[in-house]
This record gives sequence, C-alpha cells and structure tokens, in this order.
Amino acid sequence: MTKGIIHYEVGEQVDIYLLIKTVTKGIASNGKPFLTLILQDKTGEIEAKLWDASPEDEVVYVPESIVKVFGDINNYRGRTQLKIRNIRPANSSDPVRIADFLEVAPMKQEDMIDKITKYIFEMKNPNIQRITRHLLKKYQNEFLEYPAATKNHHEYISGLAYHVVSMLDLAKAIANLYPSLDRDLLYAGVILHDLGKVIELSGPISTTYTVAGNLLGHISIMVNEIGKAAEHLGITGEEVVILQHMVLSHHGKAEWGSPKPPMVKEAEILHYIDNLDAKMNMLDRALEKVKPGEFTEKIFALDNRSFYKPTFHQ
Amino acid sequence: MTKGIIHYEVGEQVDIYLLIKTVTKGIASNGKPFLTLILQDKTGEIEAKLWDASPEDEVVYVPESIVKVFGDINNYRGRTQLKIRNIRPANSSDPVRIADFLEVAPMKQEDMIDKITKYIFEMKNPNIQRITRHLLKKYQNEFLEYPAATKNHHEYISGLAYHVVSMLDLAKAIANLYPSLDRDLLYAGVILHDLGKVIELSGPISTTYTVAGNLLGHISIMVNEIGKAAEHLGITGEEVVILQHMVLSHHGKAEWGSPKPPMVKEAEILHYIDNLDAKMNMLDRALEKVKPGEFTEKIFALDNRSFYKPTFHQ
Amino acid sequence: MTKGIIHYEVGEQVDIYLLIKTVTKGIASNGKPFLTLILQDKTGEIEAKLWDASPEDEVVYVPESIVKVFGDINNYRGRTQLKIRNIRPANSSDPVRIADFLEVAPMKQEDMIDKITKYIFEMKNPNIQRITRHLLKKYQNEFLEYPAATKNHHEYISGLAYHVVSMLDLAKAIANLYPSLDRDLLYAGVILHDLGKVIELSGPISTTYTVAGNLLGHISIMVNEIGKAAEHLGITGEEVVILQHMVLSHHGKAEWGSPKPPMVKEAEILHYIDNLDAKMNMLDRALEKVKPGEFTEKIFALDNRSFYKPTFHQ
Amino acid sequence: MTKGIIHYEVGEQVDIYLLIKTVTKGIASNGKPFLTLILQDKTGEIEAKLWDASPEDEVVYVPESIVKVFGDINNYRGRTQLKIRNIRPANSSDPVRIADFLEVAPMKQEDMIDKITKYIFEMKNPNIQRITRHLLKKYQNEFLEYPAATKNHHEYISGLAYHVVSMLDLAKAIANLYPSLDRDLLYAGVILHDLGKVIELSGPISTTYTVAGNLLGHISIMVNEIGKAAEHLGITGEEVVILQHMVLSHHGKAEWGSPKPPMVKEAEILHYIDNLDAKMNMLDRALEKVKPGEFTEKIFALDNRSFYKPTFHQ
Amino acid sequence: MTKGIIHYEVGEQVDIYLLIKTVTKGIASNGKPFLTLILQDKTGEIEAKLWDASPEDEVVYVPESIVKVFGDINNYRGRTQLKIRNIRPANSSDPVRIADFLEVAPMKQEDMIDKITKYIFEMKNPNIQRITRHLLKKYQNEFLEYPAATKNHHEYISGLAYHVVSMLDLAKAIANLYPSLDRDLLYAGVILHDLGKVIELSGPISTTYTVAGNLLGHISIMVNEIGKAAEHLGITGEEVVILQHMVLSHHGKAEWGSPKPPMVKEAEILHYIDNLDAKMNMLDRALEKVKPGEFTEKIFALDNRSFYKPTFHQ
Amino acid sequence: MTKGIIHYEVGEQVDIYLLIKTVTKGIASNGKPFLTLILQDKTGEIEAKLWDASPEDEVVYVPESIVKVFGDINNYRGRTQLKIRNIRPANSSDPVRIADFLEVAPMKQEDMIDKITKYIFEMKNPNIQRITRHLLKKYQNEFLEYPAATKNHHEYISGLAYHVVSMLDLAKAIANLYPSLDRDLLYAGVILHDLGKVIELSGPISTTYTVAGNLLGHISIMVNEIGKAAEHLGITGEEVVILQHMVLSHHGKAEWGSPKPPMVKEAEILHYIDNLDAKMNMLDRALEKVKPGEFTEKIFALDNRSFYKPTFHQ
Repeated sequence: MTKGIIHYEVGEQVDIYLLIKTVTKGIASNGKPFLTLILQDKTGEIEAKLWDASPEDEVVYVPESIVKVFGDINNYRGRTQLKIRNIRPANSSDPVRIADFLEVAPMKQEDMIDKITKYIFEMKNPNIQRITRHLLKKYQNEFLEYPAATKNHHEYISGLAYHVVSMLDLAKAIANLYPSLDRDLLYAGVILHDLGKVIELSGPISTTYTVAGNLLGHISIMVNEIGKAAEHLGITGEEVVILQHMVLSHHGKAEWGSPKPPMVKEAEILHYIDNLDAKMNMLDRALEKVKPGEFTEKIFALDNRSFYKPTFHQ
Repeated sequence: MTKGIIHYEVGEQVDIYLLIKTVTKGIASNGKPFLTLILQDKTGEIEAKLWDASPEDEVVYVPESIVKVFGDINNYRGRTQLKIRNIRPANSSDPVRIADFLEVAPMKQEDMIDKITKYIFEMKNPNIQRITRHLLKKYQNEFLEYPAATKNHHEYISGLAYHVVSMLDLAKAIANLYPSLDRDLLYAGVILHDLGKVIELSGPISTTYTVAGNLLGHISIMVNEIGKAAEHLGITGEEVVILQHMVLSHHGKAEWGSPKPPMVKEAEILHYIDNLDAKMNMLDRALEKVKPGEFTEKIFALDNRSFYKPTFHQ
Repeated sequence: MTKGIIHYEVGEQVDIYLLIKTVTKGIASNGKPFLTLILQDKTGEIEAKLWDASPEDEVVYVPESIVKVFGDINNYRGRTQLKIRNIRPANSSDPVRIADFLEVAPMKQEDMIDKITKYIFEMKNPNIQRITRHLLKKYQNEFLEYPAATKNHHEYISGLAYHVVSMLDLAKAIANLYPSLDRDLLYAGVILHDLGKVIELSGPISTTYTVAGNLLGHISIMVNEIGKAAEHLGITGEEVVILQHMVLSHHGKAEWGSPKPPMVKEAEILHYIDNLDAKMNMLDRALEKVKPGEFTEKIFALDNRSFYKPTFHQ
Repeated sequence: MTKGIIHYEVGEQVDIYLLIKTVTKGIASNGKPFLTLILQDKTGEIEAKLWDASPEDEVVYVPESIVKVFGDINNYRGRTQLKIRNIRPANSSDPVRIADFLEVAPMKQEDMIDKITKYIFEMKNPNIQRITRHLLKKYQNEFLEYPAATKNHHEYISGLAYHVVSMLDLAKAIANLYPSLDRDLLYAGVILHDLGKVIELSGPISTTYTVAGNLLGHISIMVNEIGKAAEHLGITGEEVVILQHMVLSHHGKAEWGSPKPPMVKEAEILHYIDNLDAKMNMLDRALEKVKPGEFTEKIFALDNRSFYKPTFHQ
Repeated sequence: MTKGIIHYEVGEQVDIYLLIKTVTKGIASNGKPFLTLILQDKTGEIEAKLWDASPEDEVVYVPESIVKVFGDINNYRGRTQLKIRNIRPANSSDPVRIADFLEVAPMKQEDMIDKITKYIFEMKNPNIQRITRHLLKKYQNEFLEYPAATKNHHEYISGLAYHVVSMLDLAKAIANLYPSLDRDLLYAGVILHDLGKVIELSGPISTTYTVAGNLLGHISIMVNEIGKAAEHLGITGEEVVILQHMVLSHHGKAEWGSPKPPMVKEAEILHYIDNLDAKMNMLDRALEKVKPGEFTEKIFALDNRSFYKPTFHQ
Repeated sequence: MTKGIIHYEVGEQVDIYLLIKTVTKGIASNGKPFLTLILQDKTGEIEAKLWDASPEDEVVYVPESIVKVFGDINNYRGRTQLKIRNIRPANSSDPVRIADFLEVAPMKQEDMIDKITKYIFEMKNPNIQRITRHLLKKYQNEFLEYPAATKNHHEYISGLAYHVVSMLDLAKAIANLYPSLDRDLLYAGVILHDLGKVIELSGPISTTYTVAGNLLGHISIMVNEIGKAAEHLGITGEEVVILQHMVLSHHGKAEWGSPKPPMVKEAEILHYIDNLDAKMNMLDRALEKVKPGEFTEKIFALDNRSFYKPTFHQ
C-alpha cells in the first residue's frame, strides 16, 4: 500500500492515484494554457501544474475525478509541489473509488449518532431535550456528513458530527469538575451550536457558502430554526430564549460574529469548549507534519502563529 | 400656560406640576435618607433632590405620579438641578393628567399608520409586501406606541413609528435621485428594521430591556419573526433571506451588533438612512437647548462630541 | 458598433481599438521581456500581456496611445485578461480619437456648471456665497475636468464636478425633509469639500498625487485656500471658520484624515452626503458587472465586502 | 450562628462581628471627618460609613481589627451599604478571632500540597520534574497562603494553591481526552504559571503590589526564577526554555502581558485552562448572589458583562 | 517667606495668601450652597471647599482674586485638600500682587527671545528664515506670554516660548550627532509648530479654547498662517509646502490630530523632540512631588502611568 | 574600483564580483528549475534569477560564496533586478575575500569598546557599574560582532555595538540638557537593552532567530541574565530590579513586546533614545537611495511611510 501524499519528501518520486479537488486554468508566460490541480488523498493535498494543457485536458481533468500521476516532489516557495511527468484519468479497471481519497472523521457515523443520542437521553429538562432532539432529527443526514468548516479545523467528511462528539465528552469532563454547570444546557448548546452549518455550507465535498450562508450566517440561521422548532412543538418556556442565546453567543464577541456576548454561564463555557476542541484539532494536524526541533507553518486561525515541537517530544 | 421645564434658567423660580420619572433613595452625609427624583414634562427632564426624606415620602413619591413643586433652578456640576422648597403629590382636583407630561411624537398615530400603509401599498413585489404587512399588523399596537430607543434618539411615545415615517420619506427622496434602488426592499427594510424593539423593550413608559431583549437583541428577534412569518404565509422565495439580511445588517458592522455587514445595496443604504435620521433627531434636540455662539453638551451617541451653533444662526 | 471591453466574456474573441492606460515591463521566466498593458475604453479596462516584447514594441506601445488588438478573452486568477494574438498602433487613417476611450461624467460640463451656479445663486448669506463663488471661479477649469479620486469612485473625467452636482441634489432633498438645516452652509460645503483635489491631484488623465498632495492633502490645501480667499475678499465673519471647519471635518474622523470631527450640524450631514453619493457610485458600477444571483468582486473601499444581486432583480 | 454579611437584604438589621478590611478618611459636606470602612466576613464584604468620626475613632478603627456593629442594610447607588447605628471594637472577651472572618480556600493546605505532590510524582521527564519540585519547595509556604490575585478571582487565603489544584484536575481531564498532550509540561506549567505572585504580591491579607511586582510583574519574575533554578540544579536541556516559555506566554497575548504568545501546544492549552478555571470561579461567585430570573452585577474581568440566571435554575 | 502650597503635608496648618483660579458652586446634601475653590501659588494648586457660602461670598470669591486663608491640609480620596477655617479677600494693604501667584517659565522673556533670534539668525535658507521671522514677529507678544497647553505640560505663563527654547537646544544637540539633518528646517519647525496656539487658546491666564481653536485646531490654523505669510512675502518655493507639512505632521499620527504623518526626515525628528521635551517636563514635575521609594500619581498624558522614584535617588 | 551594486541604474551593464546571500530554488512555467539569488556587496543587495539551473548549479551557487556576474540591470515590479547573462564561482586566483562584501559598522571594534568602557568608567553607582561591566564582559565577543537586528536598522556586522555607541552619545547630550536624569541608569540601560540579542539571534551573518530567541525573546533573556549576574556578584539592591525594568520596558508598550511599560523616568527616555537612533539609521539609508524631489520606497518599520527628499536638499 502506498503512503499518504503529505508524507512524501522533496526529491522523492511518486506513481500513485489521487483525487482532483480543484482545477484552475492559467496562461503561462509562453502564452500557452496550463492547469493548476489540487490533488488529494485521505492524508491531505498537494498542488501540481499541468503545463501546455490541451483543450482535451481541460475536459478530462475535472474536480472529483481520479487520476494516476507519475512525477517528482519539488519545493516551490517553501511548499511542496508535484511536478507531473505523466498523468492519466483513472478508468473502471483501476482498483480505486472516490471514497478512498476523502478524509473522513476517525469515528463511524453510527457510533457518533449513538453517542450523541445517549447524551440527549441524559437530559432532564424536557423542553431542552425535545427541541434538541427535534432539530437533530430534522437535519440528521446532513449533520452526519458535513464538515465543521471549509477550512481551519474538522474540514473533512463528518467533521461536524465528530467536532460535536469531542465537545460533548469535553463538556462532560468539565461538568464533572464544576458541578454548578447545567449539563442539559451545555449538551444542547454543543449539539446545536454549529448545526446551522448544514444550511450555511453547500455540502460535504468541495464545500462553499450558500447565499443564505453568506447573507445570514449559521448563527442567525440556527436561532431562527430554534424559534420555529419551539413554535412547532408548542414550547414557550424561557428555555427557548436561552438556547437561542447559547447559539447566538457562541463566537464570544460581536467582532467574531456573535451579536450578543455570552450572558449565561453555560454559554460562556460553550464558547470555551468550542475553541479548545477546534484548536486541539488544528494544533495536532499542524504538528504531525513537523519533526521535533522544528516549527510548524504559520496557522492563520491561530493568529498566524508557528508552533514549536520540543526536541524531547519523540 | 407654564413654559417647559428645560426652558427655565439658573436662578429662576418654578411653581409647576411635573411627572416623576424615576426615584432613587440615598443616604446623605448626615446619615439621613434623601430621594433623587427625575421630574419630567413634555419638553424634557430635570433632577431634584428631596433631602431628609421621611418614610411617608418614599411611599408617596413614586414613578409615574404627578407632583406640584415649588423651588429654584440651580446649577450642579454643569447641569441644571431643581432645588425643592416645597413639594406635594397632585390629587384628583388638580387639573392635570399623566399624558400631559409625556413627550410624544409630533404626528398622530392615525396619520403615521396611514402614511406607512400607503408606502406598503406602493410595493410591487408581493412576497415583500405580504411579509411586511403581516408583521406590521401582528405588532401594530405596540409599534405605534413604543419609543425607538431607551435614550439617544426618538426616545418618546410613538418614537418608533415616527422614526420609521421619517425614514420612509428619506428613502423615497433618495430613491428618486438614485433610480437603481429597489424601493420595495428599501421601504420594507425601513418598516421592519427596528420592529423587534417591541419585544426587546418593556413598553412605552419607563422603558427597560426585557430578558429576551438582553439575551437576543431586537435584530435576532426580528430575523426570527421574518422567518416565522414566511413559514406562516408559505413564502419561500429569496425575498425572505434578503429581508432577514436587511434587518440583520442594519447596524452596519459586527462590532455595532450586526453579525453580517450589509451585502445588498439596499441594506447599505438602509443603514445610512437609519443613521441620518437618528442623528438629525439628536442634533436638533441638542442644538435647541443652546444659543448661537455656544456649544451643546457632549452627545454620547455622537462619539461624545459637542456641536457648535454658529453666531449667524439666529 | 463594438460593445464595451468589460462586456466581453471569457472565450469570446475581440478585434477592436483600445487606449493604452499604463505599460509595465517585466522579464518572463524564459528570460525575455514582456509588457503588461492596461487597455481601456469608456466602459472600463482589461489587462493584456504582450510576450516577447521587442525594443521597438517598448517605443511604440506607450500610455495614452491607441492600439488595434486582435485576441481572446481569458480568465487569469479570477479576472478576465486579454490574450493578444495581434496588435498594432492606430494611425491617422484609423477612425478613432483618444476622447472616444475615456470615461467621462454622464452630464455635460456646461450643464454641471449651470446647475452649480444656480445653487450658489440660491444662497442667502453673502459671506458664504462670495467665498464659494470666488474659489469656484479661481479653479473652475480644473474643477470641471478633474476626477473625484484616483480610484474607488467617480474616477473619470469631470468626476469631481459630477460628484458635486449629485451631492447638491441630495443636499436639497435632505434639507427639504429637515428644515432646520442651513442650506447655504450645506451647499457651500458640498461645492468646496473636495475642491482641493485640483491641487492634490496631477490632472484628469493618468492621475497621480502631486508633492503638495502627498505632504498636505486636499483638506489642508482647501482650508488654506478658504483662508486666503477670505483675506482677499476682506471677509472676517465667523462664516470663514465654519467653512474651513466644514472642509476640515468632512472625512468624519481623525483616523480618516480629518484633524477635527464634525462639530457643526451641517458638517456632520455633509460627511453623510459625501459618503452616500460615493457609495452609490461604487455599488452601481460593481453591480452592473454581475448578473442576478451573483456576488460582485470585493470592493476595497467598502471594507472589502462583496455585494449580492438578488435573483429577483431582473 | 449568624448568616454571612452578603446574605442580608436591604431593610434588614444587623448586629454582628465583622473584620475591618480597609479604612479611608473623608471630609463630609458639613466639614466634619468621616470614615469609610470596608467590613468583611468569610462570605464577602460591605461598605459602611462612620459619620462624624472623632480622632479616637481614627485610632481605634484600623484595618485587620474586629468590630461589633449594629445597624441597617441600605441601598446606595445600587450597592448595599451598612448604615452604622452603633459600633465598638471587639475585645479579648469577645468570642471571635481574625481567622473567623477571612475567606479561605475550600480545601485544607495539607490536602492541596498532597495533591500537587502526587501530580509532580507522576511526571516522567526528570528535568521538568526537578525544576518544578525545586521551585515549589523554595516558595512552598507563601504558595500555600497567598491569594491568586488581589481581586477578580480566587482572591482569598490559599487562593493561589486552590486555583492550581483545580487547574491540575482540569489539565488531567483534558489530557485524558487529547492524548497527544505532554502531561509533564502541562502539570509543570500549571504549578509554576502564577508562582511569581508570591514575589509580586505583598502577602495573603490586605494584598498590594510590591515594587518588584509593579516594575517586573509575576511573569518576568518567574521566568528569572526558572533560569536561576536550572543553573542551580545544573540543568541545561531544552526543557528550561520551554518551561520559561510556558510561564511567559500564559496570558496569551502581548496586550495581556505576555511578551510572546503561546508557541508550544501545551502553552496554548495552559492559557485555556487558566482562563476557564478563573472564569468558573468568578461566575459561580457572582451568580450565587442573585436569584433565578435576575442578572448579576457587571463583572469587570469578564468584559463588564452581566450574567443571567435562568428562571428554570432553581 | 512661606513655602509653596504643594509642599504642605496632610495635618499641617496653613495661614497664607493664595490666588483663586476657579470657583464652582454646588449644593450640599443639607441643601445649602458651597463653593469649590481651586487656589494656587507659583508651585501649584489645591482644592478647598467653602461650606455654607452666602450670596456675598459668591460675589467676593471670584477667579483671579487673592485671598488670605487659614485652615488645615486634609486628604480627600487620595488628594490633598485645604479645609478652610477662615478666609478673607486680600485688600490693597496686603503686600501681595497677582503676579506673585502665577507660575512662569524659569527664564526671562528677553532671554528667550534673544535665544530664539540667534537660532533664526543661524538659518541659511532665506525662504525658511523669512517665513519664520515674519510669523514670529507677527505673534511675538502672545508667543512670549502664552502657555504651551491648558494642562499636561508647560501649562504656565511663557510656557510656549520656554518649550520652544528647550526644543531648540535639543534640536541642536541632536543635529550635532546626526549631521545629515537640515538644521534650518528643524529650527523653523520647532519655532512654528505650536505657534497656532496663540489663536487656539484664549490667553495666558485661565486658559480655554477659542471657537476657532475648537473648530480648526492650532495645526490647521498655523498651516493657514504659513500659507498667508508666504503669499504676503512673495515666496513660492517648495519650502512653503515643507514648512506647512512640518507643522501639519508634528503630532505624528492621524489619530493624534495630524492629517498626514511625518513624510520628511526633519518632520519625524521634530515630532520626537516635541514629545521628549514635553515628557521630561511632565516627569520632572510629577517626580518632584514624591519621595524616593514612592510612585507618582497617575499621569494622564503618559498613558495614565505612575512612575517610580528609586530609593537610591536621593 | 567598481561602484556599489545599489548604485547601478536600470539599463546599465555589470561585470563584477558579488557575494551570494541566499539561494531559493523554483520551478519555472516551462517545468525547468531556476535559482533566485540574492547577491550583495557592502552597499546593499540585488535579486537575480538563474534560469534553467542544472544540478551542478545548485551545488556550486550556495550562500556565503562569491561569484563573478555579467549581466544587465532591469526593473521588475518596481524593483531593480539583475538579469544574468554569465555567471561563474570565484576561485582562489580572484582578488576577493568574503569580508569585502559584508557591510560593517562605520567604526572599528576597538574604538567602540574603548568608548563604551569610558562610559562605564564614568558611572558612580557601583551596583549598576558592576552588573553592566560583568554582562558586557561575559558577551563581549558576540556583542562586538552581532547586528542590532535581522532587518530594519543596523542590520550589519557590529551593528549592535554601533547602535549602542550612538545611543550613548545621544544619552549624554540629552542628560546635559536635562540634568535631573540619572546618567548611570541611562548608560547602563543603553548598554544592556539589546544585549540579549546575542542569544536571540544566530550570529553576524545570514542572521536568523534561535529557538530561545523565538520562544523567549531578547528582552526576557536579558532580564534573566541580569538576575543571574546580580546573584553571581552578590548584589541585592534595588538597582537590580530597576535595571531589569529598564530592559523589560524598553519597547515601550505591551503590544510592542514590553510586558510592563516604562515606569521609571530613565526607562522612558531610554525608549526614546532607542527609537530615535533606529529611525535616524533607517531614514538616512532610505534617503541615500533617492534624489531630491523623490520619495523613498515604503519603509515597513516606519508604519510603511514613504519619505520625501526636498528639492532644496542638494
């Protein structure tokens, strides 16, 4: 079995199958068109240039199709790049499927939904429980397939559900240490906080923003969904406003997209849990790519910082 | 007829009826309780101290009751203050009613609703028209009575409706000059933009924030209302998202409470019209109180600026 | 008649006359020089690359000369680009003049000056009227030809005068709704606010900043001009300081270039009118280029926002 | 047994022992001196005014002495205040000791040091373990008695040690969920991060800043201590720099006092754990004072937010 | 001879002449009027309260009159305050004049003007020299009497001229070390940079802002003056724009009131010299009031910092 | 003798020796590798492209080796670039040494250390003198060779020592004018403020940041060094904390890397002197490259400003 594309080093030769993620056409300085391909497998992605692209090439090499590539790993402005010597589209006799190349959450969908269902089952407040269950059910299919974001963290298939599962475990561990926390609110907040992404984003693959996503954002979308769910279920208690507030405020500050800052204790903690899990995810993935004694590349979503892997971390 | 309370100058004596707006109890340095009264009439308000307040005084002098006061106008730290020499609660034989002391919009409720109805009637897009009419009707009573804010601008009875009427006229004048503007969107945006205040605020008198107002804010409340109205009316067109976006973005920037900035032309213009009308209202009221050649007091909502009234403005 | 250059789509072929706006020489990766041409007509501009440029090419293809180009419209990094197949300089037998390619205000100079003169004629305060008339007369020729800016808004021939005319109409419409406004101040402020640009900028074509423009800016330049005009006309009233303040403060905030914020009501409104007209101009031009259901490109001067054209805007 | 001072409501009468925390002399408007006393017991503190204070009063009523007070609970500008009717210093026959009035951590010093020692014992990296043990031992007495801060959070006797113990438990829970974390670094970071406070602050009671605290701050003080400890122990590995970095960066950002932001994964997590425990402490104490359906007073260290206690939180 | 008012300590008794700087009337909690007097001598000022002020007191105790006061120095909220036991207006037989109480620059006006004249004489560029000499001569009387500011630094009689003299010496010392600096520009910039204050401020005593000062500021006023001076002298060289730029940019940044930042080397250095001299003045005066081992009070114009006087600074 | 590389103009031909500073490999659009060389001599550096680089080229052309280049000066995106026609490595028979190409401070190391020693000799406070002398001696070799920074200012061999010498002269000149300044503190602060750079940076050539430099920064490194020096010398006076504070605060603000702002007068002045000398160095070097009447390129460390060289500066 071949190793993942991100594990090749500059100077190595590759002869492997990869999935085309995006294609952009350009005109080279010699006046001829070329294609910039982003190729991916489960481990990550690499840029490749197909020089002197023919009109046929433009038809054949399109996103979400598989190719067999032979070439060399080079370094271009500090990033690895694949220099293509030979490329062909995969055909039905090649032993590969698209799913082989897509990164997915490290947990099965069934296991995730089981776990979340158990957390919902633990809730004692019926209003909170019913609204949460209703909305999860309404969007369950998308929820189990969507990424948590288009980039930065959990940006893979089922990333949204996996982010929620990790946060639920974290919420439980924290609630064990600080018993004054309302677990129902915390669990419901975790489950609902990013559920609006199933409307904000276009889908699990080649994810972009929808018009509603651009103009309203997942936060306002979900506040609206909670309001409609409560009306549908005939629930009028203060739990509705509090749940809307949890979702509304989970980005923490107005300048980060929350029109109100957290004003309920569990909303404040939800903001923390969300951040902590997202950062652990980003840090682990960035540090995986470097050796002890090295710095990671700058991580945009962490204030553009580079992180150091101590030499004693073997 | 007596002149309004804000037109008395330091040194003058008053002997008039006023309405108690708020009462706060304090303990003086001699150890005796005193009451700080905010007294108002239609023209504005003044602070007064009732020293050596008896327990009976605390019972008698409560908000929303009328008093007859005899005293002097003093200056305390740059603000006028009423020094009470004599005070008594008004009784049934006094020729005064609460409504005589409350500032109201300079236009009758019937005239305002007529004018707004005419603007709705002019709309050509049925989806926009139906949602706007539905929501205005749902909250019409409160809409016609509420202030536009607890302070800063249009903070009087029917201030909300009057602000909307002024903005509609401004919207029309601007749309006449820039014909590319979509009048339906602009009028609907004006009518709906602050309608959530009827849920955010407690009512037309002694106005405070409700719990939902504090935790969600009028913007998110109204986005939700539009969503529910559309569902109720069976409207699914893009107009729903655009109207929600108009309301969502009318504060202009994340740090001013809009989770998304305006991303539709009419939303940008709505933000401008709202600002312009609010500022004209603040400026006119502040400049009314000073003479040519003087500066107004600092206006908090205008970045704490003082404004100068030129000497040639007689 | 040919359609404007910005209306061609990727894949189309062009065979048209265009004006060279700027030329930049580069060295291609094959070591040979190439020219990056910005070509324009009245509708806008497009980038083109002339590969393998000979020394003669560098002499022939210079700014403000007309060329006949045959080539294809391509897409390069999200922007259209013209791929030149054939190019030649226009000669005296070609039926084209430079003026055919320059964007100009959509109103004749005579009409604009007539309209502005009428507004000046309406002024009642003689000091304000005389200073305004004196300065407009002093710089009338440049005022009628200059753009309002080097980019962002009204960046075409006579853009400055057109911006002023639009603002005057807007000022009048607003003053009709808010009668407390001093029309004299407002009209004078509109006419003078950007007049310093005739000294700050180099001229109507290929506009750059002068040394005085860079070191002082149009605001300080104009404050000085008002001071000198008043001295010349023997005017000493407070109107001089107020007019200087109107110009000084019209950018609204220190960080936007106004050493004092607006502290006179009409100065505050002038800042609003200026912004509103500039934004309408930017928005209309950006939205013209996209179809319903699309977002515009990011507009730098509008906080880098993209604007959406609703699908129901046919 | 009497209830704590913060549990009295406006209108109640008190007749209890309290400890004087601070005394400030003022001159009343009648020209006579008065004393502002901050009185405390284990539950919190209250302000009291002693009007017409005699020279003897100034001698008798000094910080860290106990008084018997008889008086009424009033409300002054939204805060409760004790109106003294009668006051006398406690004497040897009164059944009270200073320790009865001081808030202390809810865990015994022995238990805390045992727990921390166990965590140090779990460390596998000898360099990290030896530096941590050396510094804890060097400052153990102060560490077990000092508060974690002069205000905001854990501002009571042994607050520093208690904050550390809570953070260690939190660190362990998080490390269980994210096994890539280096527990040695995390535990050492927790134990050392605020240890410099034993030099920055003056002591456990009436805590103020020392000169070194003001001019250097606990972060730089501790970085220096780690450097000296390593020199003393002859340790030169990269662990020294990493531990210094953990302490240096634990405030997260330059503007919050960390000259370098976290650039090691465990440093980032340490910053989170510190924040989470401090905020839980602040929130619990603020929410304890209000009833369901109420907002807390504004909490300065939480961006001046008020927090709401839901009505369904009985 | 008596010692200065700022050198009395809490507990001391005073029986001295002082000048009334400002008077503010208030109403005490017993309902009686009182006067807050700011009393000053050459060394500084102190607040005093005159309780139970009679109407005659209000007539007698007015700004810029001298009083004989007998009373005690107290501490009120961390500031010394004079508790008046006895006060009377000074009369013609008292051996005091107003000038005895006003702080003045520590250098004679003749010496300052001589020194400045010598610097102007050293200039080699005739355009710079003539403009500087013309403007200094035009405003010489006010220049020699005005303070440099209403507060913060050099806020005493002739403070403006003294600030300029100190800066000239500093400019010379720096130019000696960095010979590439243009001394003419630097000296002219120093002399002109704050000269607009003679129009911005009301005068040497009880200094306030004029209307032109408020609406334009001393920077724009002076840019205008340089323009008019150049026109008057028939000077058209680039020196005019550069001198205007030096004045324009000397606050360093837009948000500090300079519409353009320094863009000429000498303008950048002028900004530094101005700051350095102002800060030395503030620091020396604040540190004079404390003993070694103490911190000064917070200095607003130095970012509200307290400064420490080391114990080894005897 | 050849002129320096930065003095060649576009269009000129060069045939000179240069030192390779850095080499980066790229892949051209024709698929072939190329090398981007930064070539330098004492006057500065220039970029050059070596197209179609062979594997041998990659071995031969490495940093810190000398080459003979024949080629043309071109302009690429506003910057000069050297177009290589011919290149070869220098060999032992070429009359050049590496030191010929490195920029060094304009003062000999012996003269610098003599001068600094004289300043230390002038100190009167033995604690300050001993700590300063001890640390200078400990790191003297590196101190005399290191640059003051990797870029922006004094970024050449011995730049650190030269920056210190210039600052000492400036400190003396300022102390002469403001005699209240403590010269010992000021001189010691100047000498120690950047000494931590000998640990933060990698060395005098091809300077980068060390791990300790990245994670701690030169400020914290030096605070630690002062602490260890004091312990080593048995000095415990307040001078230790004050010296640590001087170094700690010399960047002036938290957001510029100083965890505490200057809180001692000499610390404030040190911050000024440091800035002034660094800015003079940047400005002189940027202005050297332009002619009168031109603007410099944007200087990043001066807020990205361009500076103008007046036409009368011949």
